[in-house]
Amino acid sequence: MPRRKIIRDGKNVLLYLNRKRSYLVRVEKGKSFHTHKGFIEFDSLIGKKYGTSLFSSLGVEFVALEPILRDFVFKAQRRTQILYPKDIALIVMFGGIGPGCRVVEAGTGAGALTTALAFYVRPRGRIYSYEVRPEFQEIAHKNLEKAKLEKYVQLKNQDVTLGIDEVDVDTVVLDLPTPWLVVPHAYAALKGSGGLVSFSPTIDQIVKTVEALEDNGFVDVGTFECLMRGMQVIRGRTRPQTLMTGHTGYLTYARKALR
Amino acid sequence: MPRRKIIRDGKNVLLYLNRKRSYLVRVEKGKSFHTHKGFIEFDSLIGKKYGTSLFSSLGVEFVALEPILRDFVFKAQRRTQILYPKDIALIVMFGGIGPGCRVVEAGTGAGALTTALAFYVRPRGRIYSYEVRPEFQEIAHKNLEKAKLEKYVQLKNQDVTLGIDEVDVDTVVLDLPTPWLVVPHAYAALKGSGGLVSFSPTIDQIVKTVEALEDNGFVDVGTFECLMRGMQVIRGRTRPQTLMTGHTGYLTYARKALR
Amino acid sequence: MPRRKIIRDGKNVLLYLNRKRSYLVRVEKGKSFHTHKGFIEFDSLIGKKYGTSLFSSLGVEFVALEPILRDFVFKAQRRTQILYPKDIALIVMFGGIGPGCRVVEAGTGAGALTTALAFYVRPRGRIYSYEVRPEFQEIAHKNLEKAKLEKYVQLKNQDVTLGIDEVDVDTVVLDLPTPWLVVPHAYAALKGSGGLVSFSPTIDQIVKTVEALEDNGFVDVGTFECLMRGMQVIRGRTRPQTLMTGHTGYLTYARKALR
Amino acid sequence: MPRRKIIRDGKNVLLYLNRKRSYLVRVEKGKSFHTHKGFIEFDSLIGKKYGTSLFSSLGVEFVALEPILRDFVFKAQRRTQILYPKDIALIVMFGGIGPGCRVVEAGTGAGALTTALAFYVRPRGRIYSYEVRPEFQEIAHKNLEKAKLEKYVQLKNQDVTLGIDEVDVDTVVLDLPTPWLVVPHAYAALKGSGGLVSFSPTIDQIVKTVEALEDNGFVDVGTFECLMRGMQVIRGRTRPQTLMTGHTGYLTYARKALR
Repeated sequence: MPRRKIIRDGKNVLLYLNRKRSYLVRVEKGKSFHTHKGFIEFDSLIGKKYGTSLFSSLGVEFVALEPILRDFVFKAQRRTQILYPKDIALIVMFGGIGPGCRVVEAGTGAGALTTALAFYVRPRGRIYSYEVRPEFQEIAHKNLEKAKLEKYVQLKNQDVTLGIDEVDVDTVVLDLPTPWLVVPHAYAALKGSGGLVSFSPTIDQIVKTVEALEDNGFVDVGTFECLMRGMQVIRGRTRPQTLMTGHTGYLTYARKALR
Repeated sequence: MPRRKIIRDGKNVLLYLNRKRSYLVRVEKGKSFHTHKGFIEFDSLIGKKYGTSLFSSLGVEFVALEPILRDFVFKAQRRTQILYPKDIALIVMFGGIGPGCRVVEAGTGAGALTTALAFYVRPRGRIYSYEVRPEFQEIAHKNLEKAKLEKYVQLKNQDVTLGIDEVDVDTVVLDLPTPWLVVPHAYAALKGSGGLVSFSPTIDQIVKTVEALEDNGFVDVGTFECLMRGMQVIRGRTRPQTLMTGHTGYLTYARKALR
Repeated sequence: MPRRKIIRDGKNVLLYLNRKRSYLVRVEKGKSFHTHKGFIEFDSLIGKKYGTSLFSSLGVEFVALEPILRDFVFKAQRRTQILYPKDIALIVMFGGIGPGCRVVEAGTGAGALTTALAFYVRPRGRIYSYEVRPEFQEIAHKNLEKAKLEKYVQLKNQDVTLGIDEVDVDTVVLDLPTPWLVVPHAYAALKGSGGLVSFSPTIDQIVKTVEALEDNGFVDVGTFECLMRGMQVIRGRTRPQTLMTGHTGYLTYARKALR
Repeated sequence: MPRRKIIRDGKNVLLYLNRKRSYLVRVEKGKSFHTHKGFIEFDSLIGKKYGTSLFSSLGVEFVALEPILRDFVFKAQRRTQILYPKDIALIVMFGGIGPGCRVVEAGTGAGALTTALAFYVRPRGRIYSYEVRPEFQEIAHKNLEKAKLEKYVQLKNQDVTLGIDEVDVDTVVLDLPTPWLVVPHAYAALKGSGGLVSFSPTIDQIVKTVEALEDNGFVDVGTFECLMRGMQVIRGRTRPQTLMTGHTGYLTYARKALR
């Protein structure tokens, strides 16, 4: 997902209509994209700068934005439980993840979090992503290819609760129903001082995970939740938005101490 | 801030005592570090792995962790208004910031956010950070040096409300009292489809900033806040923590459409 | 709304099906009530105790509960902006409202808040409720009658921004678009030390109202919001609910100091 | 706590200094009250209206407010875990409590909640309040006397987990460490359709309580939490307050179905 200025054949574009509707599409010479607001011919976009406005066949204005990580994350998740950009951002921060990191992830799911992890560890880091369900691996692979991040990721069709192949990794990221079963394997896979981050919706999961972390030599163990609330910002009528997601999940983090 | 395994002379270590107390120190051959729980001789750490436990002169156990971005962010901010890791994580995500990005930041302050931005754009990206108060530039420089990220940052002692020198940047990040005054300059500095993120504590600031964004050709404009609440996780006594920061600031994001 | 034990002809019953569906109905001898789960004959209820279970014609179990204030409040509001039980509870608490109080309210709307105020000031208090829109007065009257609280309320089809007739009242409760216009009249109507409570959704409204209160001799002025989040409580799967109302309104309170 | 207009000898006054400091005192002829801002002679207050301003011996202005329930609740709780006005308001609303209700409460503690319950059930209702620790009963009695609400309350030095003497009560209110042990007794004490409200800080408590309620014939069982956040309202600088109480407790409510 390197940042570019000019829209080329084969590249992704986010066709932005308004706050509620936008389309992540791949530009293809000679083809067009159809929406309920008319169609858009890709040839009229090729060679233009990202950020360009254009009109559909029905005269409706779209802006051709360069997709960013947030767009790939949102669009990747149609078929699975949603992981929000806020949660992904916090996983990356509390996992100490950045360029050059080697990260183990489980489970892959549709690859939304995988995409984000790959994005942040570029160009020299690598993601080892475990998933037991083969059908999800295919979806994840497509989503990674779309974001052009597949080369940073090794998708592994293995049960992470049976063990992790890698050693001396920087961070282990868990987003699966039984994170506590992976904690001993994560300890073995992590380098000294390496970080673990686990994302879970229920109290039962965080209690079991925190206990497993404390029993297995982790320190700096903490759990929190993050509530995101949109604001309606209009002069004279500014107020928080009525609709809000009340809960996505709890984030637990820890670091490996050597025994 | 590349990740390492072995503690060497001159490197940073986070001496972790407990959830409430840890010390970010630089290891120096022949020297020691004094705490209220006794002193620690650095020579006993050099050559050991990060994650190693050690005992102070008073027999209290510490863990020598490898500092991660979150630690540098926390420790950098003693003298200025605090920007929390959660806010920094969201700024990075909603600004579309990652490896290779060229980012303009204003103002620098003590450099906590600057440190984070530099961390994420490595190794080929660059941060151009504006600050009118020269005394803060020095503090920021020291904090960047501590995190070994100074080479990714150009600190500029200039008033960003008068203009931005750079062009075609990927993202502009604003954390200053009058972000709306910078919006036209940010538009000029950004490449098409480039992102802007602004962090402000008051309603008045977000109203003026959103108006400036909408008046200056930005699209996909949104504002939200994020409430973080710690959990006390103990079997049989799990509950949210009593103390909580009720407000840090609102985050506004937008993308540049070409006119 | 006096509490009773036995279901009689002409009384209200809450036919409770499950957490999501219940029906507030008036028991009428010889008649029946139809739901998508079958019909219920009222004669089978008359003479039974509140709390009794019964089966519909389709064999589905209902519980015949005695309606409480919360039920009347919920059911009264189909056609207007919703005021939640939590907000009503806080208005009553921060307004210092209880048995014997004389309270001015504006505007009446569908009478949900009016019903609650009448409920709490019984048997010797009184509510004077202002409303400019005559069509709402009728709805409010019906809702008050349903709850058998009409005798504690005087509905006034008057514009409260032009003045309040009553004097020496204990509390003034405002739930209308321009509360700041009523503040001087509220001051005149209140006894020394009397309370004012105002409920508004936007920032602009609370700024103008707080300024009016401070300019007009009120002290102990404060504003807050209250976020209510439901919990899914199931052993092993306990967690906050996903859906949540992110904002209803801000509550501003104050007390009259004599000048 | 009937509302009055004139300050008399022996009555309570809230000497209001500012948002952070106020004093709930009893006016006594010939005596004075000392604060760090000078002393106030009670004789200068007797015969004046509530709401009157006066100056201390050091020339600092105070307002002599008539105390409301919220003041008694706040001032009653110096020595025990705090129950906030918001929680008390919600207990009253979700318990269906109002004038005329007969309510069983456990435990009494310092009597803050008892005071509130007595306030709302006046003049014909009654509170039966259980407490095993005799030392708290005395404190509660003093707090009730101060608010002149003692005649509506019967304080009982009994262990409520062993049983409840009363029958056909309207509501049972639980604020004690093991509410689930009281649920069967509450069922026996309640009239058909009567309400139960329980306030608990931990997840474990709400899981056990909800299970006990569902196992013992209650319906309409729900649990929620309420987060209250103060606003700093100043034109141009309006924002949520930084400090916030992140958690007080969860409120569970239910109603008795007859078996």
